[in-house]
Amino acid sequence: MRVSALLTSLGINSTLCVLFFTLYSVLRKQPGYYKVYIPRLLAQGSSRREGRFKFGRLIPSPGWLARAWRLSEEDILSSNGLDALVFMRSITFCLKVFAFAGVIGIFVLLPVNSMGTQLHEIDFTDIANNSLDVFTISNVNDGSERLWIHFAAVYTVTIFVCGLLFTEYKYISSKRIAFFHSSDPQPHQFTILVSNIPASSDISIGESVERFFRENHPATYLSHVVIRRTSKIRNLTNEAKNLYKRVTHSRAGSLQDKHTIFSEKVDLDRYEKRLEDIRQHVRLEQSDISMSKKDTRAAFVSFRTRYGAAIALHLQQAVNPLHWITEEAPAPKDVYWPFFSSTFMQRWTSKLVIVVVCVLLTILFLIPVIIVQGLTNLSQLEAWFPFLKNILSKTFVSQIVTGYLPSLILQLFLKIVPPIMRFLSSIQGYISLSEIEKSACNKGIWFTVWNVFFATVFSGSVFYQLSIVLDPKSLPEKLGISVPAQASFFIAYVVTTGWTSVASELFRVIPFVGSLIAKCLGRSTDDEEDVEAPSICFHRDFPRMLFFGLLGIAYFFLAPLILPFLLVYFCMVYFIFRNQFIHVYAPKYETGGRFWPMVHDTMIFSLVLMHAIAVGIFTLKKLSWASTLVFPLPAITLLFNEYCRKRFLPVFRAYPAEVLIRKDRADWNQGLMTRFYGNLVTAYEDPAMVPISYSRNPDSLDLPLLSPVSI
Amino acid sequence: MRVSALLTSLGINSTLCVLFFTLYSVLRKQPGYYKVYIPRLLAQGSSRREGRFKFGRLIPSPGWLARAWRLSEEDILSSNGLDALVFMRSITFCLKVFAFAGVIGIFVLLPVNSMGTQLHEIDFTDIANNSLDVFTISNVNDGSERLWIHFAAVYTVTIFVCGLLFTEYKYISSKRIAFFHSSDPQPHQFTILVSNIPASSDISIGESVERFFRENHPATYLSHVVIRRTSKIRNLTNEAKNLYKRVTHSRAGSLQDKHTIFSEKVDLDRYEKRLEDIRQHVRLEQSDISMSKKDTRAAFVSFRTRYGAAIALHLQQAVNPLHWITEEAPAPKDVYWPFFSSTFMQRWTSKLVIVVVCVLLTILFLIPVIIVQGLTNLSQLEAWFPFLKNILSKTFVSQIVTGYLPSLILQLFLKIVPPIMRFLSSIQGYISLSEIEKSACNKGIWFTVWNVFFATVFSGSVFYQLSIVLDPKSLPEKLGISVPAQASFFIAYVVTTGWTSVASELFRVIPFVGSLIAKCLGRSTDDEEDVEAPSICFHRDFPRMLFFGLLGIAYFFLAPLILPFLLVYFCMVYFIFRNQFIHVYAPKYETGGRFWPMVHDTMIFSLVLMHAIAVGIFTLKKLSWASTLVFPLPAITLLFNEYCRKRFLPVFRAYPAEVLIRKDRADWNQGLMTRFYGNLVTAYEDPAMVPISYSRNPDSLDLPLLSPVSI
Repeated sequence: MRVSALLTSLGINSTLCVLFFTLYSVLRKQPGYYKVYIPRLLAQGSSRREGRFKFGRLIPSPGWLARAWRLSEEDILSSNGLDALVFMRSITFCLKVFAFAGVIGIFVLLPVNSMGTQLHEIDFTDIANNSLDVFTISNVNDGSERLWIHFAAVYTVTIFVCGLLFTEYKYISSKRIAFFHSSDPQPHQFTILVSNIPASSDISIGESVERFFRENHPATYLSHVVIRRTSKIRNLTNEAKNLYKRVTHSRAGSLQDKHTIFSEKVDLDRYEKRLEDIRQHVRLEQSDISMSKKDTRAAFVSFRTRYGAAIALHLQQAVNPLHWITEEAPAPKDVYWPFFSSTFMQRWTSKLVIVVVCVLLTILFLIPVIIVQGLTNLSQLEAWFPFLKNILSKTFVSQIVTGYLPSLILQLFLKIVPPIMRFLSSIQGYISLSEIEKSACNKGIWFTVWNVFFATVFSGSVFYQLSIVLDPKSLPEKLGISVPAQASFFIAYVVTTGWTSVASELFRVIPFVGSLIAKCLGRSTDDEEDVEAPSICFHRDFPRMLFFGLLGIAYFFLAPLILPFLLVYFCMVYFIFRNQFIHVYAPKYETGGRFWPMVHDTMIFSLVLMHAIAVGIFTLKKLSWASTLVFPLPAITLLFNEYCRKRFLPVFRAYPAEVLIRKDRADWNQGLMTRFYGNLVTAYEDPAMVPISYSRNPDSLDLPLLSPVSI
Repeated sequence: MRVSALLTSLGINSTLCVLFFTLYSVLRKQPGYYKVYIPRLLAQGSSRREGRFKFGRLIPSPGWLARAWRLSEEDILSSNGLDALVFMRSITFCLKVFAFAGVIGIFVLLPVNSMGTQLHEIDFTDIANNSLDVFTISNVNDGSERLWIHFAAVYTVTIFVCGLLFTEYKYISSKRIAFFHSSDPQPHQFTILVSNIPASSDISIGESVERFFRENHPATYLSHVVIRRTSKIRNLTNEAKNLYKRVTHSRAGSLQDKHTIFSEKVDLDRYEKRLEDIRQHVRLEQSDISMSKKDTRAAFVSFRTRYGAAIALHLQQAVNPLHWITEEAPAPKDVYWPFFSSTFMQRWTSKLVIVVVCVLLTILFLIPVIIVQGLTNLSQLEAWFPFLKNILSKTFVSQIVTGYLPSLILQLFLKIVPPIMRFLSSIQGYISLSEIEKSACNKGIWFTVWNVFFATVFSGSVFYQLSIVLDPKSLPEKLGISVPAQASFFIAYVVTTGWTSVASELFRVIPFVGSLIAKCLGRSTDDEEDVEAPSICFHRDFPRMLFFGLLGIAYFFLAPLILPFLLVYFCMVYFIFRNQFIHVYAPKYETGGRFWPMVHDTMIFSLVLMHAIAVGIFTLKKLSWASTLVFPLPAITLLFNEYCRKRFLPVFRAYPAEVLIRKDRADWNQGLMTRFYGNLVTAYEDPAMVPISYSRNPDSLDLPLLSPVSI
């Protein structure tokens, strides 16, 4: 790729970004789009609707940027919880790393690279016509002593990143403890989920739980809630809800305009009949459940103290380790009710199946990647589709096709990955939304690394890729050949996928389009009380951000030109997400910073990948001493990682006894507990089992409506 | 190797075995060798010394075989503990497997192999002159449909072994629980070892422990013992003991014969002066210790209940996971006092160093293995040492050299491995003898598998071996080529190493030689009260036995001829170890059956190795369908292993809460506890700190003598 192609791509994307920014600045001030741009404020009821039209509304203003800048860490923590803070810390982490690497890369490595003559001499007269490869390490002459500068850069950045990772891990784990200390008593801190309760013919599951915990935890056991199979009720009530909506809609219509046609009347009757059926069905089901015919072999068991719950959680309870399996209970609003596979074997099997599905998906996904790769290689494209020859010979078209189109297509395909991953995680047997998102996040990261990074680098068949991975000996060498060759693609990728995706995050393209369509169809409702603030999709945004981090670390010494673009990207992410945390997102759950270990692992992986590439490059560049001396680096990095795992990870797995006991005592001394126990006993009732509430509207049907929690 | 060479080897070894058996049968009845052959009975005081000479003593009798046969499982359990039972169960496990595989191998596979004509047609007229290869799978014609019989055998045996592993794991885990229930209260059940106690300038370690556990475990905390650096005292007292022996010996000598020379007198004076010095030194050290100048940052902390100890063990105690690290306390007599690295980092580093040392050792050990390999290849040997040509051309010599010598040399080299591994484990930072032996056992198994199996199979340089392992894709193919080629070597190996080693175990060669030398030097002491029963070296016997198990499983379908020899080996092991458990060994520690998971893992590894070989063989034999259909087998085996890990392993890691609570209650109801607490408080005093006891002999020096525990 030539510099000019990069500039084209840069031009298109900068324009897009500016457009998004401007549109956002204007639209966010229009009351009609409050639901899109400030749902969080609406939900809190803190937005004052300005009825009168003001001219200022039409002028784009950067005030939101200043507000986002002023937001302090405590604000994020109190309004969006620790997970949002971890997300922001990850961004600032990347910013710090790439600012440091950027200084080295741009002021030291870039001049060294462009002074080389291995590929071409740089053509200062016509900068735009230079190949981007001139700025990469490939241009440094083989065996040149200047490569020691790159070697030193690899060491420096590794040490810097490791140091930063350590302080960050330490900071976040201390924040986690502090956050726990400052929190009010919450049901999930006192509760565990017990599954695989052994069934007995003479007593019910509930009695069995009661007996077991009264026997083994007499001092701390408080209560339990057996989990029921309520998916049928849930389906029925969902159906009822939809029907009810239609019925009210029809009625409203028929009241407004009197020309009700006969067929509509018939429809209405039919709906009402169906609704009556459902109501009957729900009653039947509920009576079944209350006779404990639909008990699963799992229950939420609550304890009097956090420490009591922790003891039951960490000690194997029964002689058979597959009975009375304990795990942490999620917060009540975090419980993922639809899926409660009851047996250990089922959950295990579904896990295995999901692994297989993920592998298959990864393989299938290579097809679009390979097509995209074809596009960067114009001559190959012309060979495939000879009729395109004329069009492709135009400079502008060819620049778009090589510089912009490939990343765009890839980006579109990648858009569908997070929902798929989330779906796969949701059928894997996790019991909480947070676990599902965390798992989807992990899947997303490895999928992206494999399918974007490795697939692009080793563009070729699946079997070729597998053969490379199965032959670890030659991996560094192959990386050394292939990775620098794709430098220009990834620079373009940062500009297109990175910049555009973050700008469209600000503009909230999909909700915006949704609201436009709703307006056109006249379905827009004005009751702002109903607005619920969306939650941030960590499983979409973490993998994307971390992947850019990986790209930056892997490429910083190969193609330092990538760094300024990455810095711009992370700056945009920084401001935009801070803004979104103020105006858009509200947390749906709280993991207490459990996303950080994933960030840490990805960074460690990026470092080791960088070292492997360095070994390959130095070998290829005939500086074998350097490639030998790089070897200790991955070993030290992995040892450092092992140390961090021992030093910090346990705190993210469970709260230490010392903390739990101190917190329990503090709560007792404040006398908060007796009232709290009352709530705790009912906190884990299945929403589908909440007593039937009738619609407030006396005019409407006698329909069991769901409480907001269950929707 | 020809059949005749195998027969030579068989002849030599059978003779050796018969010789050992006969000698044993006679010598065990001679009172002079009671200390060698029935130390356990002597230590128990249950042997009656027959003063009068009886003629029957000189006639070999097989009575001990009958006694060994009659020994029941309960007897082993009560006299030698669960570990000995696990050892015996492992042997019977192998017996069952090879009886089953033997029937298939000898009656089905062997005829099929010898009917093939790929290598040679079998020569019935001169059986002894046939190559052993005729009986291996190599002789089956390529692409022959008969290979499906081997395929079926692989499946059948895998299923049989897995089924047996499952029932065995279940049986042993239930035995473990039952053994725990039937045991008296023991100090280590109530105690944990806490290390990395944070040092504080104003309070001592002891006070710090007291404060921490009174704060966090007020209901269950009982007492603690801070561990001191007593290695100096230990060295001093050891030195004193040696000197004291010499002094008493000299004195006894000088009393008996009056011709004491002047120089001896001088020596005696010097010794006594030195002893006085040491006594002074010990006192100084002990006073230092009692002023807690030599506290390490570790302590044994005892609790009122087993459950209380388990809670403190399993929950992370402090906010910093590297402080207050808890681990199970070993039984007091199982504690390995010499080594208490105080910090987490030290233990971690020593672990890493040991890993590196093990790798180096493995590489160095290849040298003798390669030499041994050279011997099986006569022509190569002749090429190396041309002057041997004349000798080697003699049939008998060449048969000995190819059939017997290689395994003998290997065996001698392997003899030094268990002590080395034990030494390495002992400096690795384990705190108990049982942990050290378990770790040495593990090291021993992998060392043997790598250095005997793989090194023999892929005889070649280290780098060649590494290149094979680093290229997992081609591993099955290479195994398929190399493994059958070494069949005859391993058959000979079973006969020489296996048979001889087990027979020499019965004969107890080294103690026997030791006692002979002592007799010649006139140092034999007749006081049978001093005899201590030795403990079985699990780290020597488990790896050896398991390696034969691996050989059997890997070779059963390749060279079924190995199976009868293995069966004979395991029968001998069965009888001889039962006999040794009655007469020789007494347990030094009790892990409660924790050796079994290791046996299980080794068996699973053997199965997967067998599958890899099968894939290679079927590919080579041009039966690609069979090699494809073998593929699910390792996957299923590994899944089965994973299931077993989840189903049984937790019980071996820790006792479940249910069991602990029940046992605690039972003890309370029996009213055993108050007296037990008294013992518990002092159970973990360092033997070096036991109050100085003076020798009973009033004539002797005022020397602090060690209690038997510390020797």
